[in-house]
Amino acid sequence: MSMSKAPDGMSTHDSGSKDESHFIEDYEGHDNITIHPNAWSKYRLYIREYVAEFLGVCILIIFGTGVDCQVVLSTVTGVASSQKGSYLSISFGWGIGTAMGVWVSGGISGGHINPAVTIALATYRGFPWKKVPGYILAQVLGGLVGAALVYANYYHAINIFEGGPHVRTLATASLSGSLLMLFVSFFGSRNQDLLVLKLDYMTAVSCFFSEFLATAVLLVVVLAINDKKNMPAPPGLAPLVLFILILGIGASLGMETAYAINPARDLGPRLLTSMVGYGKQVYTFRNHYWLWCPIIAPILGAQAGSMFYDAFIYTGEESPFNRPNAAARAHHERAMRTGRRNMPAGPGAEDNV
Amino acid sequence: MSMSKAPDGMSTHDSGSKDESHFIEDYEGHDNITIHPNAWSKYRLYIREYVAEFLGVCILIIFGTGVDCQVVLSTVTGVASSQKGSYLSISFGWGIGTAMGVWVSGGISGGHINPAVTIALATYRGFPWKKVPGYILAQVLGGLVGAALVYANYYHAINIFEGGPHVRTLATASLSGSLLMLFVSFFGSRNQDLLVLKLDYMTAVSCFFSEFLATAVLLVVVLAINDKKNMPAPPGLAPLVLFILILGIGASLGMETAYAINPARDLGPRLLTSMVGYGKQVYTFRNHYWLWCPIIAPILGAQAGSMFYDAFIYTGEESPFNRPNAAARAHHERAMRTGRRNMPAGPGAEDNV
Amino acid sequence: MSMSKAPDGMSTHDSGSKDESHFIEDYEGHDNITIHPNAWSKYRLYIREYVAEFLGVCILIIFGTGVDCQVVLSTVTGVASSQKGSYLSISFGWGIGTAMGVWVSGGISGGHINPAVTIALATYRGFPWKKVPGYILAQVLGGLVGAALVYANYYHAINIFEGGPHVRTLATASLSGSLLMLFVSFFGSRNQDLLVLKLDYMTAVSCFFSEFLATAVLLVVVLAINDKKNMPAPPGLAPLVLFILILGIGASLGMETAYAINPARDLGPRLLTSMVGYGKQVYTFRNHYWLWCPIIAPILGAQAGSMFYDAFIYTGEESPFNRPNAAARAHHERAMRTGRRNMPAGPGAEDNV
Amino acid sequence: MSMSKAPDGMSTHDSGSKDESHFIEDYEGHDNITIHPNAWSKYRLYIREYVAEFLGVCILIIFGTGVDCQVVLSTVTGVASSQKGSYLSISFGWGIGTAMGVWVSGGISGGHINPAVTIALATYRGFPWKKVPGYILAQVLGGLVGAALVYANYYHAINIFEGGPHVRTLATASLSGSLLMLFVSFFGSRNQDLLVLKLDYMTAVSCFFSEFLATAVLLVVVLAINDKKNMPAPPGLAPLVLFILILGIGASLGMETAYAINPARDLGPRLLTSMVGYGKQVYTFRNHYWLWCPIIAPILGAQAGSMFYDAFIYTGEESPFNRPNAAARAHHERAMRTGRRNMPAGPGAEDNV
Repeated sequence: MSMSKAPDGMSTHDSGSKDESHFIEDYEGHDNITIHPNAWSKYRLYIREYVAEFLGVCILIIFGTGVDCQVVLSTVTGVASSQKGSYLSISFGWGIGTAMGVWVSGGISGGHINPAVTIALATYRGFPWKKVPGYILAQVLGGLVGAALVYANYYHAINIFEGGPHVRTLATASLSGSLLMLFVSFFGSRNQDLLVLKLDYMTAVSCFFSEFLATAVLLVVVLAINDKKNMPAPPGLAPLVLFILILGIGASLGMETAYAINPARDLGPRLLTSMVGYGKQVYTFRNHYWLWCPIIAPILGAQAGSMFYDAFIYTGEESPFNRPNAAARAHHERAMRTGRRNMPAGPGAEDNV
Repeated sequence: MSMSKAPDGMSTHDSGSKDESHFIEDYEGHDNITIHPNAWSKYRLYIREYVAEFLGVCILIIFGTGVDCQVVLSTVTGVASSQKGSYLSISFGWGIGTAMGVWVSGGISGGHINPAVTIALATYRGFPWKKVPGYILAQVLGGLVGAALVYANYYHAINIFEGGPHVRTLATASLSGSLLMLFVSFFGSRNQDLLVLKLDYMTAVSCFFSEFLATAVLLVVVLAINDKKNMPAPPGLAPLVLFILILGIGASLGMETAYAINPARDLGPRLLTSMVGYGKQVYTFRNHYWLWCPIIAPILGAQAGSMFYDAFIYTGEESPFNRPNAAARAHHERAMRTGRRNMPAGPGAEDNV
Repeated sequence: MSMSKAPDGMSTHDSGSKDESHFIEDYEGHDNITIHPNAWSKYRLYIREYVAEFLGVCILIIFGTGVDCQVVLSTVTGVASSQKGSYLSISFGWGIGTAMGVWVSGGISGGHINPAVTIALATYRGFPWKKVPGYILAQVLGGLVGAALVYANYYHAINIFEGGPHVRTLATASLSGSLLMLFVSFFGSRNQDLLVLKLDYMTAVSCFFSEFLATAVLLVVVLAINDKKNMPAPPGLAPLVLFILILGIGASLGMETAYAINPARDLGPRLLTSMVGYGKQVYTFRNHYWLWCPIIAPILGAQAGSMFYDAFIYTGEESPFNRPNAAARAHHERAMRTGRRNMPAGPGAEDNV
Repeated sequence: MSMSKAPDGMSTHDSGSKDESHFIEDYEGHDNITIHPNAWSKYRLYIREYVAEFLGVCILIIFGTGVDCQVVLSTVTGVASSQKGSYLSISFGWGIGTAMGVWVSGGISGGHINPAVTIALATYRGFPWKKVPGYILAQVLGGLVGAALVYANYYHAINIFEGGPHVRTLATASLSGSLLMLFVSFFGSRNQDLLVLKLDYMTAVSCFFSEFLATAVLLVVVLAINDKKNMPAPPGLAPLVLFILILGIGASLGMETAYAINPARDLGPRLLTSMVGYGKQVYTFRNHYWLWCPIIAPILGAQAGSMFYDAFIYTGEESPFNRPNAAARAHHERAMRTGRRNMPAGPGAEDNV
């Protein structure tokens, strides 16, 4: 969710014509290297951005589902002597996971670690669309692997909670004995209350609105702290802002749908849960809740937040709202011919400021 | 509350004569643009500062009233399985809201997001008075819209709390069933205890003093971290200081009047509550408490804090305490004629340091 | 506790000969001003450093004793509907107060806001001894005024707690009805347990050791983050480190003597309590506990921490451990004559790096 | 765990030939000093790095075991009037200890304060192997002394907890009266539950995996925030990131084995406990748990995390994954002869960027 320093993030347009030499050029730009030190480092260039996204989401999910497991499982008889955390701990865990996920990937891939962010940047900041599928795939895989590591870490405690290594069933009416709560709560959407307490007061519209609103707020802040003409976070500290931001979203907008605000954060762990024994029910629950609430709503909310920010605040050239019209282009061409440069800065010019 | 990077904030005096070209010049200063890329980007310049203030307060209120709602509503039977936060969470939420509000607006409008700050900067830092009404209007509107979004987000939970979608009544004697508590607490002044527990021990003088003191402390810190000759926050990190500051004010001075310390933060949500069914009572309560406690006291406290800081610490030219007298002006003119420049730096000179 | 940017702090030696022109030179150094804009700004130069220390401690005490009052008083029947904070809140409040106190004074006076720090810097960093008495007086006065403001802010709640506006008595055996607890805890040394629970297990040696150890740790960190050859905090962010540090000392070493670690933090509020009705008992308690535990122990602990840091880590010229011996001085003089400069950098030279 | 600014850390290779003049050169590089100001400052150069590691771990353990003691001991009857902290406090304390430990040592020794980090940096970042034993010895000694200071600080409260100054026995079945819990929990591995509750569900494999995973995550983040081509933490702020990171590991992965993730953090305090009366049992418990869980697992986990980061993300020359092969070396030599410099930057070249 931080785009500064991203080689292919906000500040560059990908022409598409020099596709194959892209990574090498990027590598050169950093190091003045024209040949690779060895074969592996050459091949690595083609996967490095995607591995960074994979790693970022993996780290996010290790912290996030980790804190969910620790706080809830520590209350189970026989697992721990006292509860190891609180709701505030959970907010901290997800905030920290987001920050660490971006710190390990920000300079390589831009640190999106969220398909909703990737799609919004492709729409409003010139992130190349052709990379979007690879980014999203890497992000979901990172979520799956992160959840698997946490599942392995808390395997025995989960067994105690569930009643045995082969019990992986859905929740029933009562809270005690609700297995799905553990499953969806930890590795899915965290909205245990929706399942266990049958909180029918949360209509589908409300669930959708809650994710939509929180993701819109997320994108407004993400775009602002990467906007050089607003109040950008200092280099290397965008993840600190994200830590505080996600802590706040968890504290303020987290109760109703557990603030997925990130399709990969939900889908990756959900895939894991279907693999370890919970089966297809994780997708069919509440008319395909998994699809419209933690996936579609964040993607659309991210679009809405980005649109608002760009329409009213952003002046950078990458945004569709600031595309030059015919008059501006004509003026620009005249200026180029006469040697005066007083047009809107073109892509990349911002780096020279 | 952060003035660094504000194009029209602390560091510039507005001459008034070149009023209409103001925004465009500012825009040029950033980008060397003499024509606008398109029509919308031209019109946007005239509203961008005000939209930034609107957006900043809106974000502040989404986090602030959001955390109020989440922590209190999650205790209502049928809403959640356990309380989703604590008093410390509330302090975090308001601190995070302030930080995020400034991060999304700081570089555009100066990130005041508080009429008391705007008025104090106009008095002591040369912020143009003619912009003050527009700023305050934008701030109050931002509070209104932010509260509306949170109200929509927690609509169903509020209904459960109130007893139904059409019940929006004032508090009665008992805590259970106190509807006004929810209302004022979440969207108003948060001082639920004053209403519900009939805490007559808090006299009007005490309420006024509490808001006055907290806002004076707020302004002393805000002016200090924007004072280049003191210990200014690094570029882009003033909001981090504000996060910690508001967290502290909530923890230390927040019990008695719920630290409004910001007229827009109270009036905006209060307007929303009168619209959604609580009516005029929100204004008539306790001899127009809404006016003298969360509006007048913060404005005067901000003046007092600024006056103390400027009288004893600040040496910048913008402050009335550092206006040159006749002798200094005469010296300055002589120096200008002789080519020596050893006078107090005039407005704008600071930018050349 | 932050020495960077302090005009007369660590990095300069005061020759003593140009004493009267000192402030003006300093002022000039910032602004190229040779005359003062007006009379007040001229007189202000002579008091500004001391006012900054006063203000810094005042802010520290407002947050610190404020959070003490809020957390404890909110538990009293009739004061609030629920507890407004926890032990962690108290740790946060004191950490935030320290950070804010340094942010408002750091660039003016060095932001010591602690007599133990001032004395240690005079001993080990060349801070002029002649300023030490004025600094300490200003710090204690700041503590007194800060406590008075908090006392005024919570006056009515304290009355409810004490049983009336004229009841200001010492603690008796039982916790309920212990008035001294409120007094010493909030405005004194916070070690309510020593008084109320008669925790004789805490011997005088243990009390002394606890303050000694915590202040030694404090100084090691303070010196490290101001040591340009170690890992200094970025400009403007030393208070952030102090926030985290004080939060940690409160969490880890705060239980036994309530981590005064600052003579002004204890003595200022203690003076206030003797004025508002508690009388001489606040000084006679436990064989003049007020003197040897929260005053002498921190001063000696600060010396010990500084000594350790300078003996093993610090290489700067200001420290007595790095004073050049005769051979080094002779080498230096030869080098000066021959035009080569390869001696230990003299005072002030560090600023040219 | 921060390697920036470390004179002998990541960015330099130690040739071994100029071993004795090493420190002096380093000293010169900072200050242009060719002779030492006095005899002590000359001798100090030979031990300064090791003292910094000692001091860093000592500070870490003071905060870490300090918060353990405070939170648990304050619940014992007669020790305090209320619990002074919570599980979240403990997470804060260890995070703060880590940050402060690095802040006081980062610029001198690199701030490893963890043998697993030291070994990983020797393997993957060219940290000289010949310094590794000295570093580890200093780290373990720092842990021992830090634990001794905390033990002295809480001596009387521990006596109340244990039942007397000469009672230092192992835990029995019941929680009340479990002495080993205090011992191992505070000064050992914190995994009180393993001992007291006989949590046999935590198999040896699970214990090992938990430490392995947490340390791998630690190293991925540590390497990322010191990687200039990723998103490095700003100078002086790496400890802030570590504070957040350790807070997160405690919240998310801390329940099962108490996240030793640092052999010195466990072994140092464990040595102290065997000295003060707990004897050999601290080593024989559970088939030498002390060796394979908090020592071997973190070392191997650190290797795994570093290997992953370097294999897929890191492009710096120091890593074995980026060693130039024969072709690259030949190309480099040709380039050197022809004056063109387009090879991978050699060691030290990075500093010129």
